[in-house]
Amino acid sequence: MNKNVQVLLASRPEGWVEESNFEIVERDLPKPVPGEVLVHNHWLSLDPYMRGRMGTGKSYSAPVEIGAVMVGGTVGEIIESSHPRLKAGQFVVGSLGWQLYAVSNGEGLAVVDPKLVPLQAYLGAVGMPGVTAHIGLLEHCQPKAGETVVVSAASGAVGGVVGQLAKMQGCRTVGIAGGAAKCEYVVKELGFDACVDYKAGNLYEDLKAACPDGIDCYFENVGGVVMDTVLRHLNAFSRVALCGLIADYNLTDPYGIKMIRAILVNRVNVRGFIVSDRMDLYQRAIPRLAKLVAGGKIKYRETIAEGLRAAPKSFIGLLKGENFGKQLVKLT
Amino acid sequence: MNKNVQVLLASRPEGWVEESNFEIVERDLPKPVPGEVLVHNHWLSLDPYMRGRMGTGKSYSAPVEIGAVMVGGTVGEIIESSHPRLKAGQFVVGSLGWQLYAVSNGEGLAVVDPKLVPLQAYLGAVGMPGVTAHIGLLEHCQPKAGETVVVSAASGAVGGVVGQLAKMQGCRTVGIAGGAAKCEYVVKELGFDACVDYKAGNLYEDLKAACPDGIDCYFENVGGVVMDTVLRHLNAFSRVALCGLIADYNLTDPYGIKMIRAILVNRVNVRGFIVSDRMDLYQRAIPRLAKLVAGGKIKYRETIAEGLRAAPKSFIGLLKGENFGKQLVKLT
Repeated sequence: MNKNVQVLLASRPEGWVEESNFEIVERDLPKPVPGEVLVHNHWLSLDPYMRGRMGTGKSYSAPVEIGAVMVGGTVGEIIESSHPRLKAGQFVVGSLGWQLYAVSNGEGLAVVDPKLVPLQAYLGAVGMPGVTAHIGLLEHCQPKAGETVVVSAASGAVGGVVGQLAKMQGCRTVGIAGGAAKCEYVVKELGFDACVDYKAGNLYEDLKAACPDGIDCYFENVGGVVMDTVLRHLNAFSRVALCGLIADYNLTDPYGIKMIRAILVNRVNVRGFIVSDRMDLYQRAIPRLAKLVAGGKIKYRETIAEGLRAAPKSFIGLLKGENFGKQLVKLT
Repeated sequence: MNKNVQVLLASRPEGWVEESNFEIVERDLPKPVPGEVLVHNHWLSLDPYMRGRMGTGKSYSAPVEIGAVMVGGTVGEIIESSHPRLKAGQFVVGSLGWQLYAVSNGEGLAVVDPKLVPLQAYLGAVGMPGVTAHIGLLEHCQPKAGETVVVSAASGAVGGVVGQLAKMQGCRTVGIAGGAAKCEYVVKELGFDACVDYKAGNLYEDLKAACPDGIDCYFENVGGVVMDTVLRHLNAFSRVALCGLIADYNLTDPYGIKMIRAILVNRVNVRGFIVSDRMDLYQRAIPRLAKLVAGGKIKYRETIAEGLRAAPKSFIGLLKGENFGKQLVKLT
């Protein structure tokens, strides 16, 4: 008989996450009680927000308890159901955590169609990262045609969608990414107007060259010195959607942003946001994103780790920027 | 015959402003041509924004040229007029600079009534600082009754009005000021619920005690470590009106703000703003502020320097927080 495999949080990281912060265990398959389904997860999503859930610092959600299954988005197949609405054979996206099997009462599960887009896309461009891009860009940045939009982590699951949506809005679209390969992909495959390699050591000047009219919208995934440098190029009345600060997540002493003055003198609006605050917009964004992905209008790249046991190492790689595009774990 | 006296910008400061950055000159009285008025300035306002105009760094206005009269708000009496609307004997508020006399074509001058409130109030609570408080608090922070509002530089020309308006909104109102005397004034005379002395060396804990329910609105005049500490107490969906950063103005290397993460996890909206962007609101705020001041509902304190030649030293004192309340120069 099949066993469940789970990745538990074994200890809280100090600074960088280590594999020893996780424990991998085998368990008997859980049994659904009446009203529940048993889901066989096919894909696990790895996302930067998980770092926050491993610590006890103030975050937007409660931390994962020591000994509990790590939180995470999943997509899988219902293999047993006594739920009135959900049926065996259906595919569902949800947040069932770092494990092969899970029971659920159906709350937070959405049935998805694997024929419309590949199943794992519901964890990426047609899932939480895609909706994050959609809400942050269109609700908070509100870019107008002709404006310049800059997005950091531009080859990532969120950043890639931000840039492609910004191009559709008629904006000059500039990415920031780490390394020549990612920058080339961002421009040649995703269609950004330009991409600046922050690792090349010339970020201020390179951004200036890529944004001759300054920056009107900045979609921030990174923070740290990248953010501090972008602030120096902001135009009057520009907008910053603060989505992530991955550069800070593993620092016990975060980088200090010096250019707060740029926010004042340019009358900038900076807004922190979390996709799950806007479930109303979520449900409207998903069909649009599915259509754009199915029609080839939104492209993306994936980095796929094989098997749940590879998840801790892949997650650490994600925090270090070693992934290229959406980081997934293939569970089947 | 009377001579004009002017304070010119002699050189640009590096770091702290020094008296040698100014030059005081005597000139013949200017002559109004047809369509112009000659104004005898009675009061000059000294305000932190002037520091930005002395440098060449990016600001919201062009810098003062070397050798030009320093910019500044003034209120005075028209002593000669060939202007179709303005008459000799009228009092006008405007921005005629650091000088005893000025000619003007009337643009930017508003006639004021010295019987309604004291003449110099049009440079303070019923002028630019008061309107700044009004717009920043009511338009950007939008505090609701029962919320906690914190304002830095609470005994200053802007901060004092912010707190008194916040009290009228039904908010718990907490000031931050430098020294026990300013804090006592903020609570006992201005009616704030509490005031924290940032110089006492215990800002994090003292703020926590003063804001048991966290902070919903922060009106920022100061920046630096005060801002970084306040960010740690922000509630979810709180608002920061970024009005000034006086702690940074004289630093060649500004303080680095570490708690950007608090903006993200609390989904904070931070907005830089400049009062002059909202002249529509300006004209609506002035009559309300005049009524509140005339009725004793808004109180303020003034620090008055005697004579234009005292302006450079007083301005340097203002940048160091040596003033108490609105810093004015009495010119007559």
